[in-house]
Amino acid sequence: MYTLQQLADRVGGHISGDPQIEISGIQPFETAGPGHLTLAGEKKYRDRLEETGASAVIVSPDLVSSKKALLQVEKPKVAFAQLLALFHRKPFTAKGISRLAYVGKRCRISENVTIHPFVFLGDEVVIKEGATLFPGVYVGNHCVIAEECVLHANVTLYDNVSLGSRVIIHSGTVIGADGFGYVFDGHSQVKIPQTGRVIIGDDVEIGANSCVDRATFGTTVLERGVKVDNHVHIGHNCRIGENTVIVAQVGLSGSVEVGKNCVLAGHAGAVEHVKIGDEVTVMMKSAVTKDIPSGSVISGQPAMDHRQWMKIEAVARRLPEIYGKWRKWLEEARKTNQEK
Amino acid sequence: MYTLQQLADRVGGHISGDPQIEISGIQPFETAGPGHLTLAGEKKYRDRLEETGASAVIVSPDLVSSKKALLQVEKPKVAFAQLLALFHRKPFTAKGISRLAYVGKRCRISENVTIHPFVFLGDEVVIKEGATLFPGVYVGNHCVIAEECVLHANVTLYDNVSLGSRVIIHSGTVIGADGFGYVFDGHSQVKIPQTGRVIIGDDVEIGANSCVDRATFGTTVLERGVKVDNHVHIGHNCRIGENTVIVAQVGLSGSVEVGKNCVLAGHAGAVEHVKIGDEVTVMMKSAVTKDIPSGSVISGQPAMDHRQWMKIEAVARRLPEIYGKWRKWLEEARKTNQEK
Amino acid sequence: MYTLQQLADRVGGHISGDPQIEISGIQPFETAGPGHLTLAGEKKYRDRLEETGASAVIVSPDLVSSKKALLQVEKPKVAFAQLLALFHRKPFTAKGISRLAYVGKRCRISENVTIHPFVFLGDEVVIKEGATLFPGVYVGNHCVIAEECVLHANVTLYDNVSLGSRVIIHSGTVIGADGFGYVFDGHSQVKIPQTGRVIIGDDVEIGANSCVDRATFGTTVLERGVKVDNHVHIGHNCRIGENTVIVAQVGLSGSVEVGKNCVLAGHAGAVEHVKIGDEVTVMMKSAVTKDIPSGSVISGQPAMDHRQWMKIEAVARRLPEIYGKWRKWLEEARKTNQEK
Repeated sequence: MYTLQQLADRVGGHISGDPQIEISGIQPFETAGPGHLTLAGEKKYRDRLEETGASAVIVSPDLVSSKKALLQVEKPKVAFAQLLALFHRKPFTAKGISRLAYVGKRCRISENVTIHPFVFLGDEVVIKEGATLFPGVYVGNHCVIAEECVLHANVTLYDNVSLGSRVIIHSGTVIGADGFGYVFDGHSQVKIPQTGRVIIGDDVEIGANSCVDRATFGTTVLERGVKVDNHVHIGHNCRIGENTVIVAQVGLSGSVEVGKNCVLAGHAGAVEHVKIGDEVTVMMKSAVTKDIPSGSVISGQPAMDHRQWMKIEAVARRLPEIYGKWRKWLEEARKTNQEK
Repeated sequence: MYTLQQLADRVGGHISGDPQIEISGIQPFETAGPGHLTLAGEKKYRDRLEETGASAVIVSPDLVSSKKALLQVEKPKVAFAQLLALFHRKPFTAKGISRLAYVGKRCRISENVTIHPFVFLGDEVVIKEGATLFPGVYVGNHCVIAEECVLHANVTLYDNVSLGSRVIIHSGTVIGADGFGYVFDGHSQVKIPQTGRVIIGDDVEIGANSCVDRATFGTTVLERGVKVDNHVHIGHNCRIGENTVIVAQVGLSGSVEVGKNCVLAGHAGAVEHVKIGDEVTVMMKSAVTKDIPSGSVISGQPAMDHRQWMKIEAVARRLPEIYGKWRKWLEEARKTNQEK
Repeated sequence: MYTLQQLADRVGGHISGDPQIEISGIQPFETAGPGHLTLAGEKKYRDRLEETGASAVIVSPDLVSSKKALLQVEKPKVAFAQLLALFHRKPFTAKGISRLAYVGKRCRISENVTIHPFVFLGDEVVIKEGATLFPGVYVGNHCVIAEECVLHANVTLYDNVSLGSRVIIHSGTVIGADGFGYVFDGHSQVKIPQTGRVIIGDDVEIGANSCVDRATFGTTVLERGVKVDNHVHIGHNCRIGENTVIVAQVGLSGSVEVGKNCVLAGHAGAVEHVKIGDEVTVMMKSAVTKDIPSGSVISGQPAMDHRQWMKIEAVARRLPEIYGKWRKWLEEARKTNQEK
């Protein structure tokens, strides 16, 4: 339970209305009731502030209301996310290492960790303060798991994987499996040993059942703040820039470089060795087949400038009609010619 | 071993031929032999009933044969599936809770269950009569697993997941991982806490390595009888209607609603917040980008009416030829003009 | 540490330069230093052999250098993969069966195996010489795991799965889950029991979080030497021919046959019952909807001959321009007609 004023202070906001209103939770606009704070971020909600049952509403500074208490803040949605975390954050309590977990040789494990039953740690693993490893997690030799990481149930880290601070990895995800590399000798596909490693930066979150492969040589890297959804495949030697967001079922072949602050939408893919610049948006199901300059918005298979793609789509969708018109016109032209 | 008559009685069918034939198993048309029952569902088999080695054939009521014993039934394929289950159903035998499993506090577990080694149950988990949890299953706090559920090896249920009766979940599938939601504050992607839950209805089956994310607020729902294949991603707050079938590698973004009795084919996807009606067929690899009325058949990226898509495809495939013709015609027209 | 001569002998190569150079490791062209062997396989490296810091370079027999020691061999990339394996191969040491593993009844397990903690073996499992099962692996009843197999952490094999020699399966992969088959009885989707099995040939490698479903009847087969990437879905009753390579996120429906030495690129898919011949290349994201003759290169949705697809694409990309020209021309033609 917080007063509205306490919440405003946490996100650097101002209050219009009674700052002493007590807030017990955060709920969506339609379902919020007395004691709740809600968000009016989208236009459809901003126009009808009075309609929510919430006791107070997070809004941008330009909004006013004579009837509702408002928490005015520059970035309402950011404030909403931060305050929602405030209400739902479960304080970490270190439960130590379960006697049903297996710990390898020469591990260095902070005292303040929670390692659940059926966790397996290989040799020389480092686990720092505040980390939580759920049941069924496998950690290979020489891995490093930094402060406050959360590895959900049945996550697998192969040898030599390094996680930064506050990394969250959801269940079923596999980090550091062999990259996919073979060479055909005329009789068989000969495996190219995958000798590299994986480094995951601070504040990265990876969804469920995703894969980040180890490098053939060197390192596969996800930089600070990268967010990866479920079922994403990141091939060997990829490098993903800060804060880039990769949506479900995207597939990146080996050695793809992606810049900062990009968004790769669902089912998109990229062929080997392409470089995608900063702040690029790759629309869903697109196939990136060449280097993409920073700031681009691309779509299509193969991917091109999104505006160009939309122009092509606009004509393509009318193809039966256009072709029909052309045939009709041609027929008439022929008739005219014959008549002459 | 059953007589043909006994099998006919189970599926409400009639017999043409000897009802006392003994049936020891069910096999495909080509490989069936003496003592086997088989199915002649498709036209190619219906026309050559005498060619199977089976002792009897499941057919529709209109088919007759002087040489083969027939089990005539309105829905031959349904009868086939039911009788196949009869022969292959392994009776459930409760083995109780393995001493190698971990059980949290205040769980309520029926006596007639099988909980294998290396299963982890969190606190206040409810497991009802006849459930089977294979090794490596993780069940978070406050989950409910109703009668006769089967959770195959290495399935993960996060906290607050509820499964109806007779739900089957295949290995590696993750139910209740966080929905994918962030808001950019100009410096980092701020996580939107995912505070909701997942409810899975009766008789749902989910394939291997799929994901159903928990809701941001509220509930992600799969209604009664939904069937989901492998590698399917169902985002936060989705609602999937009764008996809908979702084929492998489909991806649904957050808050997608799908009606009853739909079929979503392989690699199809849908963007956030779209509503798909009842009995809609989404063809493979289609991208649903807007609401779709009930009864539609759609395809394309973005998806449109399937007949319209086929018309476009028909012209698109002839584009090089059509463009060639047009250029030739244009050249001739210019010549003609110059000659005048 | 090997002499260059020793390495050349292993791959049947010749040496130009000092055969007694000592090689301590293999590194990429750009990062190699003294004591390293590297590869100049691609043209860009072949033209500047002197620029690598490596002490020796693997090249094709036609290359010469007065400055660098060369290991000349017919297939440089194959030699590179083989020698890399030589340096990185960890010798197998049998650790036996962990006392934290669970072993079912009547298993036949070679003495020289490594079975880690939290592995579960069902009844009548056979595990042969040199196999390694990492933690969290689940092996169902009646499975056979042949010589030198490696099952990485959290792999699941359902009942009746058979693995050939030297099979490698990466974490999270599920072999033998039920094929996806239902028949609608007007009220519910009735499950078609999946009574078959899976056979995986010698030297197959399957990436992380992939699925190979059991057959409805009979057998799903991956023949000798097949290589499968991450997140691949192989449906019930598929048969994949020798040495075929299947890239990440490919989805094959039930009963698809793929020949030998094919390449199926990322996100490609195939509908039920199609037959793909030998040495076929399916380009990324393609949708195979009909039988494909051997030797084809195909792309598109639905897939067609790749050259034809490229011709269509070339016109399609110019559609806005072509349509604009046509409209302009039409307008002019009308004016001319009116003027007459």
